[in-house]
Amino acid sequence: MSSSAEQAAMRRALELAATPGVPLGPNPRVGCVLLADDGSTVAEGFHRGAGTPHAEADALAQAGDRARGATAVVTLEPCNHTGRTGPCAQALVAAGVRRVVFAQADPNPAAAGGAETLRAAGVEVESGLLATESGLLNTIWTFAVEHGRPFVTWKFATTLDGRSAAADGTSRWVSSRAARLDTHRLRALCDVMLVGTNTVAVDDPLLTVRDEHDRPIAVQPLRAVMGERDLDPGRRIFNTQYSQGAESVHLRTRDPRTALEQLHALDRQHVFLEGGPTLAAAFLRAGLVDEIVVYVAPMLLGAGRSAVADLGITTIADAFRPRVTDVTVLAGDPEHNVRLTLTPEEN
Amino acid sequence: MSSSAEQAAMRRALELAATPGVPLGPNPRVGCVLLADDGSTVAEGFHRGAGTPHAEADALAQAGDRARGATAVVTLEPCNHTGRTGPCAQALVAAGVRRVVFAQADPNPAAAGGAETLRAAGVEVESGLLATESGLLNTIWTFAVEHGRPFVTWKFATTLDGRSAAADGTSRWVSSRAARLDTHRLRALCDVMLVGTNTVAVDDPLLTVRDEHDRPIAVQPLRAVMGERDLDPGRRIFNTQYSQGAESVHLRTRDPRTALEQLHALDRQHVFLEGGPTLAAAFLRAGLVDEIVVYVAPMLLGAGRSAVADLGITTIADAFRPRVTDVTVLAGDPEHNVRLTLTPEEN
Repeated sequence: MSSSAEQAAMRRALELAATPGVPLGPNPRVGCVLLADDGSTVAEGFHRGAGTPHAEADALAQAGDRARGATAVVTLEPCNHTGRTGPCAQALVAAGVRRVVFAQADPNPAAAGGAETLRAAGVEVESGLLATESGLLNTIWTFAVEHGRPFVTWKFATTLDGRSAAADGTSRWVSSRAARLDTHRLRALCDVMLVGTNTVAVDDPLLTVRDEHDRPIAVQPLRAVMGERDLDPGRRIFNTQYSQGAESVHLRTRDPRTALEQLHALDRQHVFLEGGPTLAAAFLRAGLVDEIVVYVAPMLLGAGRSAVADLGITTIADAFRPRVTDVTVLAGDPEHNVRLTLTPEEN
Repeated sequence: MSSSAEQAAMRRALELAATPGVPLGPNPRVGCVLLADDGSTVAEGFHRGAGTPHAEADALAQAGDRARGATAVVTLEPCNHTGRTGPCAQALVAAGVRRVVFAQADPNPAAAGGAETLRAAGVEVESGLLATESGLLNTIWTFAVEHGRPFVTWKFATTLDGRSAAADGTSRWVSSRAARLDTHRLRALCDVMLVGTNTVAVDDPLLTVRDEHDRPIAVQPLRAVMGERDLDPGRRIFNTQYSQGAESVHLRTRDPRTALEQLHALDRQHVFLEGGPTLAAAFLRAGLVDEIVVYVAPMLLGAGRSAVADLGITTIADAFRPRVTDVTVLAGDPEHNVRLTLTPEEN
């Protein structure tokens, strides 16, 4: 059983883990508090992103000799592998920590086993305290580790009657300014934006995340294009001059699963898919869409390009029926847009 | 200037006008309070539907001789015409009422002029007190009187990608049960349900308003079908056995304006249009849709019947852009539907 001091320390460790300004990256958010026998805090630490010390190492460095005999309260199972930094389980043992209380078990098979290593070294281990809260800190990371591929958010904009462009191809703008700004906000929460080669060839998007003044934000997601077609290197997606050095990659495959594997190998965890209805349909048919964000504009066209391509569905019983998890009105002048967020049932 | 007693009386008259249970019908909701000189209430009255006394007559009947010298506070300008009941302006004069305070001026040219008649007979008249509140009691009636035609609510249901049926024609159900119940609730607020001959020929709807137990409600809107095509009298829309005696009418025109004129001549004020995309498109193109209710189902089909037919729009600048006035999530198990209510800009 964890003590009340340990419970309070875990809440503090969760706060530390959620410290604003920690950059999105391949690593989870983790916080750690070292407690003395009397329940007083010896040191605190948290992880500040890939290449920097893990939360436990951060706390141990501050504690120095005072770590001996202490209890480490940490939001994630201490890692057992040597990545860019050494394994935390070994570091805790070496520092003389007597007891470890952690929240979430490490879902990463390469990093798991920390608890066993600690126990084998004679350290008291307790797990599961506030595990749900810890999981909520790192839902995308947990998903990516558990599934071995990035989480996929598919975004599309549509008129009330399912159109993304008028009969003559014009589409500026179906979505309101508020909806377009909201899209940039969501892009910034991802670490990859993915389109198909056709979108690059036809629309030539810059594919950066921009702020409300239309300026690129400081840290840009990876700009990924998938498909076997060769692309002109002069396309804007490969431009770094106006894009805060955003990186680009051409994934030479038409298979959604292969593309996601390649992005996973690049340590990417969250794909923002907005590359045309055909690409989206391929992901949907492969069961590789984990979240759908739809901006519905109060507009009727009666004809024009369909927002969603053929899904191979011929009868109502086979309709793709995601579950609505959020409905938000994006107020605008003059027009409101409505954002629906949905999750496929199997998720 | 109205006195504080008159202001209180007008609020009471508005309450009386809104008395629950007054049936929808061709007449507005009206309330009336008769005040003695000391501000005390002499009598109250309200209108209970077509063929019954107007609010003023109701109050006068209760007041008897005590109406002499009283002030009549009434939510609508007393009428000046003889319909199924005599003109109220004359009745107020005959009863010896000294002063009349009314809220909304009568928008009906056939009934207006009551204020002049009263003044000509030496009665003090004041208008406009809580006129907005009174107008809100009778928005549909006011619209119909001012425009000389019924208000038109167009309802359609769609998937997220603008489909009303799958490729094989199946459509049960696009909308959730909660959305279908909500549709019946809205139907009950109208006095006409309108479809095209094609819908009657193909879908053969009963077109009644049913409650949550799928039983027809007591007072049914008129079931109207429009179009020049002859219809089999055995179609369910003409059936009265299972429809609480709901009336039916075949309007032999393809012109939306003509159909609305015919319904107006039948004293109808609020059309619920749900008769297929082609009919709706004809109303939209004629500028004869005053409100749009859309049920969006969290479903993707990728193909199938479009929920909205061709509107003759070829470029985005010409898109039909109604204004969103309400967004409501209709919670359901397992699926939520979203209801959007919209108003064309010109309204």
